[in-house]
Amino acid sequence: MRVVLTEEEIAKARVAANTIRCLSMEGVEKAKSGHPGLPMGAADYAWMLWDRYLRFSPQDPSWPNRDRFVLSAGHGSMLLYSLLHLFGYELGMEELQSFRQWGSRTAGHPEYWRPPGVETTTGPLGQGVGNAVGLALGGKLLQARFNQPDLPLFDYRVFCLASDGDMMEGVASEACSLAGHLGLGNLVVLYDDNGITIEGSTELAFTEDVRGRLEAYGWETLDIDGHDCGEIAGALEHACCDRDRPLLISCRTHIAFGAPEAVDTAEAHGAPLGEEEIAATKAALNCPAEEFFVPEEVRERCAQRVAELQEEYQRWQKLAEEYECRHPELWAEWERMCAGELPEDLEGRLLAAIPTGSNATRKFSGAVIQAAAEAVPWLVGGSADLAPSNNTMIKTSSSVRPGDFSGRNLHFGVREHGMGAILNGLAESGFKAYGATFEVFADYMRPSIRLAALSELDPIYIFTHDSIFLGEDGPTHQPIEQHMALRAIPNLYVMRPADGPETAMAWAVALERTTGPTALLLTRQSLPEIDRERFAPAQGLRQGGYVLAAAEKPDLVLLATGSEVGLALGVYEELTQQGLQVQLCSMPCLELFEEQAEDYQRSVLRPDCSRRVSLEAGITQGWERYVGESGLRIGIDHFGASAPAKVLAEKFGFTIEAVVEKIRAWAPELR
Amino acid sequence: MRVVLTEEEIAKARVAANTIRCLSMEGVEKAKSGHPGLPMGAADYAWMLWDRYLRFSPQDPSWPNRDRFVLSAGHGSMLLYSLLHLFGYELGMEELQSFRQWGSRTAGHPEYWRPPGVETTTGPLGQGVGNAVGLALGGKLLQARFNQPDLPLFDYRVFCLASDGDMMEGVASEACSLAGHLGLGNLVVLYDDNGITIEGSTELAFTEDVRGRLEAYGWETLDIDGHDCGEIAGALEHACCDRDRPLLISCRTHIAFGAPEAVDTAEAHGAPLGEEEIAATKAALNCPAEEFFVPEEVRERCAQRVAELQEEYQRWQKLAEEYECRHPELWAEWERMCAGELPEDLEGRLLAAIPTGSNATRKFSGAVIQAAAEAVPWLVGGSADLAPSNNTMIKTSSSVRPGDFSGRNLHFGVREHGMGAILNGLAESGFKAYGATFEVFADYMRPSIRLAALSELDPIYIFTHDSIFLGEDGPTHQPIEQHMALRAIPNLYVMRPADGPETAMAWAVALERTTGPTALLLTRQSLPEIDRERFAPAQGLRQGGYVLAAAEKPDLVLLATGSEVGLALGVYEELTQQGLQVQLCSMPCLELFEEQAEDYQRSVLRPDCSRRVSLEAGITQGWERYVGESGLRIGIDHFGASAPAKVLAEKFGFTIEAVVEKIRAWAPELR
Repeated sequence: MRVVLTEEEIAKARVAANTIRCLSMEGVEKAKSGHPGLPMGAADYAWMLWDRYLRFSPQDPSWPNRDRFVLSAGHGSMLLYSLLHLFGYELGMEELQSFRQWGSRTAGHPEYWRPPGVETTTGPLGQGVGNAVGLALGGKLLQARFNQPDLPLFDYRVFCLASDGDMMEGVASEACSLAGHLGLGNLVVLYDDNGITIEGSTELAFTEDVRGRLEAYGWETLDIDGHDCGEIAGALEHACCDRDRPLLISCRTHIAFGAPEAVDTAEAHGAPLGEEEIAATKAALNCPAEEFFVPEEVRERCAQRVAELQEEYQRWQKLAEEYECRHPELWAEWERMCAGELPEDLEGRLLAAIPTGSNATRKFSGAVIQAAAEAVPWLVGGSADLAPSNNTMIKTSSSVRPGDFSGRNLHFGVREHGMGAILNGLAESGFKAYGATFEVFADYMRPSIRLAALSELDPIYIFTHDSIFLGEDGPTHQPIEQHMALRAIPNLYVMRPADGPETAMAWAVALERTTGPTALLLTRQSLPEIDRERFAPAQGLRQGGYVLAAAEKPDLVLLATGSEVGLALGVYEELTQQGLQVQLCSMPCLELFEEQAEDYQRSVLRPDCSRRVSLEAGITQGWERYVGESGLRIGIDHFGASAPAKVLAEKFGFTIEAVVEKIRAWAPELR
Repeated sequence: MRVVLTEEEIAKARVAANTIRCLSMEGVEKAKSGHPGLPMGAADYAWMLWDRYLRFSPQDPSWPNRDRFVLSAGHGSMLLYSLLHLFGYELGMEELQSFRQWGSRTAGHPEYWRPPGVETTTGPLGQGVGNAVGLALGGKLLQARFNQPDLPLFDYRVFCLASDGDMMEGVASEACSLAGHLGLGNLVVLYDDNGITIEGSTELAFTEDVRGRLEAYGWETLDIDGHDCGEIAGALEHACCDRDRPLLISCRTHIAFGAPEAVDTAEAHGAPLGEEEIAATKAALNCPAEEFFVPEEVRERCAQRVAELQEEYQRWQKLAEEYECRHPELWAEWERMCAGELPEDLEGRLLAAIPTGSNATRKFSGAVIQAAAEAVPWLVGGSADLAPSNNTMIKTSSSVRPGDFSGRNLHFGVREHGMGAILNGLAESGFKAYGATFEVFADYMRPSIRLAALSELDPIYIFTHDSIFLGEDGPTHQPIEQHMALRAIPNLYVMRPADGPETAMAWAVALERTTGPTALLLTRQSLPEIDRERFAPAQGLRQGGYVLAAAEKPDLVLLATGSEVGLALGVYEELTQQGLQVQLCSMPCLELFEEQAEDYQRSVLRPDCSRRVSLEAGITQGWERYVGESGLRIGIDHFGASAPAKVLAEKFGFTIEAVVEKIRAWAPELR
C-alpha cells in the first residue's frame, strides 16, 4: 500500500527529517546526556506523520478533537521537542538548546503538558502504550456520549510511537490485549523496530514475532521500511481509514540513521555521539555545519502545514458551534466535564447514600459509587476482574464492550498494570476514572500510580481487602506494607476510612481532587458503626486526621485508621471506664493531615502528651512521626497468615484486651 | 495425538478425578472459604499428569531430578493439597480438613515448601508462570553444568498449571516471551481454559487468541478437551518428548465440572458450593455421600504409582553414584552448591576486588561481581537490558542463549517483572541469582520481590541509579520513595553502601544470606573515597549501621546512607572545625540494624543526644525512628527534576553549605 511520491516530495521530507536528526543529536550533545539514536531512526516516519496526517493546533494545543501523539519511547524526547519546535508550539530554539537543564521545558523524558503538546509523561517503558490505549478508549467513550449522526464532535486518533523496550514490557502487553478485545480502531502504534537494545542486538533476548502477537490480540498489523517515505505514507494513509481494530505499524529502522559509525549500534541509544561523529553525520546527510540549524524550506513547510491544520481547526469550531445550537444540553454537559464542575451538594449526596448499620467499607463504597455516578456523569471505571469483590459496578449503566462504548463500567480483566496505565489515559481524556483491585495487588500497578502522581492526573484507585482481616486467602493476599508504601509516593492521597460516613467523605475528596490521584483502602470485613452523635462527624476527614473524642488533659492519645478505629473505640471505652483521660483520633489520610496548620496538627496529636499510640493493621514504619520516639506503635511488621479474620485478630493482638494489655505494659505508670 | 485408553482405564481415572473434586469442594466447604471451581475443572488432566507422567518422590520430596509441578493458579490450592495427600506426601487427611485454618499446612494459597511438595508460593496471578520459566531455565543451567554424555544427572521437566488470570498478567507475558526466545523445551504450561473469570465470561475482557500469542513467542501449542482422558494422555505424552520449544497445552474445561448448578458459572470460582450443591454433585458424579472419602481403589493406585516412581528414583540414585565416581570434582561442586558452601575468606576476597579511588558504587559492584563469580560458581545473573549501566556482566563467562546454557550471564530483556519471577525460580533451583535494573524500576517487579521475601528465597537485586543524582534523565527515572518503599517489605534487606568497601561488604552479606532477598541500591555517580584508616572499617555494615567517627558527648549525631555519607563527612569536617562534637554514622542497612541488641543501637544513635540528623536522598518518612520526633530529617519529599546532578544538589540542598545551614537554623543554640 505504498503511496507514490514525487522525487521532490521525498527530497523535501528527507531534508526535514534530517533537520530533526541534527536538532536531536545536537540537543543531546549540548546536554552531554541523552538518547540520539531513536530520534534519528524514527525521524522519517515521525516527520511524515506530523507533516501529512496528524491533526493538531499549535495555537490551541488542547483542542479537544486533536489527534494525540504519544511518545512511549520517552527517551527519544528530542524527537518530540524538535517536532513541537518546528511546528510552532511554545518551545523556542533556546529550549532545545537547554535540553535536560534546570528550569527548561525540555526535560530528559517528556513531562505531561510541559510544554503543551506533550500529551503524557513517558520514559518508564510500556507506560506510554498503556496510556495510548487509555486515550483511545477515552476517545471512543467521548464519541459514544457526544457524537450525533451528522455532528461527529470527536473523531480523533491516537498515534503512539513505541520502542522494542515498550513492546517487551508486560504493561504494554496487558493494555494491547484489552485494546484488541475492545476493537479500538482509533489507535495506531508505530513500532520502531530497530533491532537494537541497550545490551546489544534484540537477538539477545527478544526474538518473538511481535506482529504475530499483536494479531493474536486482535490487531491489524503492517510492516514497512521506516525510512521509505512512500511506504510510510501508504501505511499512515491506511491508518487514517475507519477501522474496527487497532493497528500496529512495524517500522524497520536503523538506530542513529545517518551517523556513519554509530548507526545500528547499541552505543547510539543513550549517549551523545561526540563532535566528530556529528560532523561526519552532517556531512553524510548533506546538512550544513551550523549548529541547531533549521533550513528555511523546513520552516516554510511547517508554517504551511499549520495553516492547513488551522482550516481544519476552524471547521471543527464551526461544527462545535452548530452542535452547541442543536444539542445545548449535551454541549453543556461537555462544558461541565471540561470544567470538572461538581454539584455543590456533592458531599451531602454521597453521605446520604450510606446505608445505616455495620458494613464493610468496600460495600459502603459500592453504595457511594451509585450516588457519585449520578452526580458526576463523566465518572467511569471498573475493576481488574474483581468487580463483585471490589463493589465497583455502576448499577444504572451498562458495560463498555466491543462496538458499544456508551456504558460506564469497564472490564479490565486480570490486568492491574494495564488498568493503571489506561486510567491515566482516561484521566487525560477528561474522564474521572477509577480502577479497582485488592490492595496487595496495588504493587502490580505501582509504576502507573507513580506516573499519575508525577503528572498530577486524578484517577481514583479502589483497593479493597485492605489488611490481614481478609482472612483465609492468606499472606499472598494480605497487605502489610502496602499502606505505608503507597503513602511513600509523593502527591498520592491514601485514604483509609473507618466507617460509612468516612467512606463517603473519602469519595468526596477523591472526586474533588484534580491535582493528583487518590487511593481508597477499604475493608473486606464489616466494621462497627461509629456513633456520630456521640463522636465527631466524619467531615473531619477533610483535615486528614481529626479528634473523635477529645480529652482536655489526656493520659493517652490513641491514633487509628480504617478498620482499627472501631478497635480503638473499644479500647477507648475500656480505658476511660478504668478512669483514664483518652483522646481518640481517626487518621484516614496522612497526606491531608500534613497539609494542615501546625496548630491544628498539635490539637490532634497533643505533643504535650508523651503517651501516644498508633493502631493500624500494617507495618509500623512511619508512625513515629505521630506518636514520637517514646510512643507505642501497634501494627504488624511481618507477613500475615491464612486463617479466619477473628483468629488472626487474636493471634496478632488486634483485640480490645490485647491492645489494652500492650498499652498497660508499655505505660505501667498509668492507673 | 489422542492415546487410546481402555474403558476401564478411563473409568478409573474418572473415579480418581472425582475423588479430587470431592476433597476440594469439601475442603472449601468446611473452611467456609476458598475456590472449588478450578480444582473441579482441572481434576481430570491434573490426575492424569500425576498418575502417569509427573516424576516425583513423596519419600524424598526434594529429589533433585524430580519434575516440578507449579500451580500458578494458586487459588486452586485444594487441587494441589488433594494430590499431595493422595500420593503420600506428608499431608494427612486432617490437614485437608483444616484447610485455611490457623497453624495448618493447607494455607489459602500454596506456600513454598509448606508442606514439602509445594514447589513455589502462588496466588498473585502470573507469578507462578514466571517462576516456572525460572525453574525450567534453572533445569537447563543444571544440565549444561553437570550432565555428562552418558550420565544425564538432570532431565526434569517443569509443569505449570495456569488459569486465564495467569495468562492475562503482564509478568507471565514477559516470562513466556523469554522462555520462547530461549527455547525452554523442558517447560510445559497447562492452560486451564474454562472461559470463566470472576466477573463472568472471559468474553468480557479476554478474547485474544492465547495459542496464537504463545506461538508468536516461539512456543509449540496444543488444544485439547480437558475432560477427555485420551486427549489428555496424548498431549502429555507429547509433552514428555524431547523438544526445543516450550509447550502450551490449552485445556478446555468446565469450571466446577460435575456440579449441576455451579458448573460454568463465575460464582463457582471463589465461594463454597453449599451443602445442597455438594450433595447434588456427588450424586451426579456417582460418589458416596461420606465426607472426605477416598475410595480404596484410588489409594491403591496411588500407592502403586509411588512404587513405580520409587524404581525410577532408585535408578537415578544409582546414576548419581556412578556420576560421583566418574566425575568426583563435578559432584563435589554440586554438593557445595546444594549446601550453599561459601569460601571462608569470601569477605576478604570481595574487599580485595575493590579498586582504590573515587568511583560509583555501581562500578565497585561490577568489580565485586567478578570476585563473587569466582568464589560462588553457582552465581548467575543479569539485567533487564541495562547491563552496561548496571555493571552486571561476569566477564569470564558467556551469555546464556538458545541452545547454550553453559554461560552465567542472563539477558532478561526489558522485562523487570518477568525477571523478578524468574529469579525466584532460579533461587528455587539452587542458584544464587541476581537481577538488575534502575532503582526506580524496582516498582515494576515489586510483586515478585514480595514473593521472594515471603518465601524466604534469596535472590539479589542490583538497583543502580539510586537517587536524583542520576541527573538529566529526570523525575521519571529518579527514585524518591523507593528506598523506604523497599524497606517496607518484610524480610527484604535493603543495602545502600557508601563506598567501595561497603559495596563489597553488602555483596558479602547478600551472598551469605539464605533466608530472604537482598536489594543493593547503588549510585550512578562517583563518590568520594572514605579514609578507612581515619574512620571505622566497612565491616560495620554487618551491624546495619555503625559509627564512622565517634563523639564522647556529641552535640550532634549525623546519620547518613549511601551517597549521602560522603556529604555527611564534609558536614562533619565543617562542624568539627567549628568546634562541635559530632558523631558520624553510616546506616547502610536498617533491617540489619534493627536486628542488633538495644545497647549497640543506642551506642550508634545516642538517644542521650536530642540533636540527631538523618541525611538521605529520598523521602524522609521512617527516619523519625532514628532521629526522634525533635530530630532533623534531611531528604527530598517530592519528585525530582531533569538537570545535571551538581545543579540538583544545589537546588535541593544537598551541599555541605546547605546542610550545615539547615542544621544551624534547626539548632541555633549550637555554637
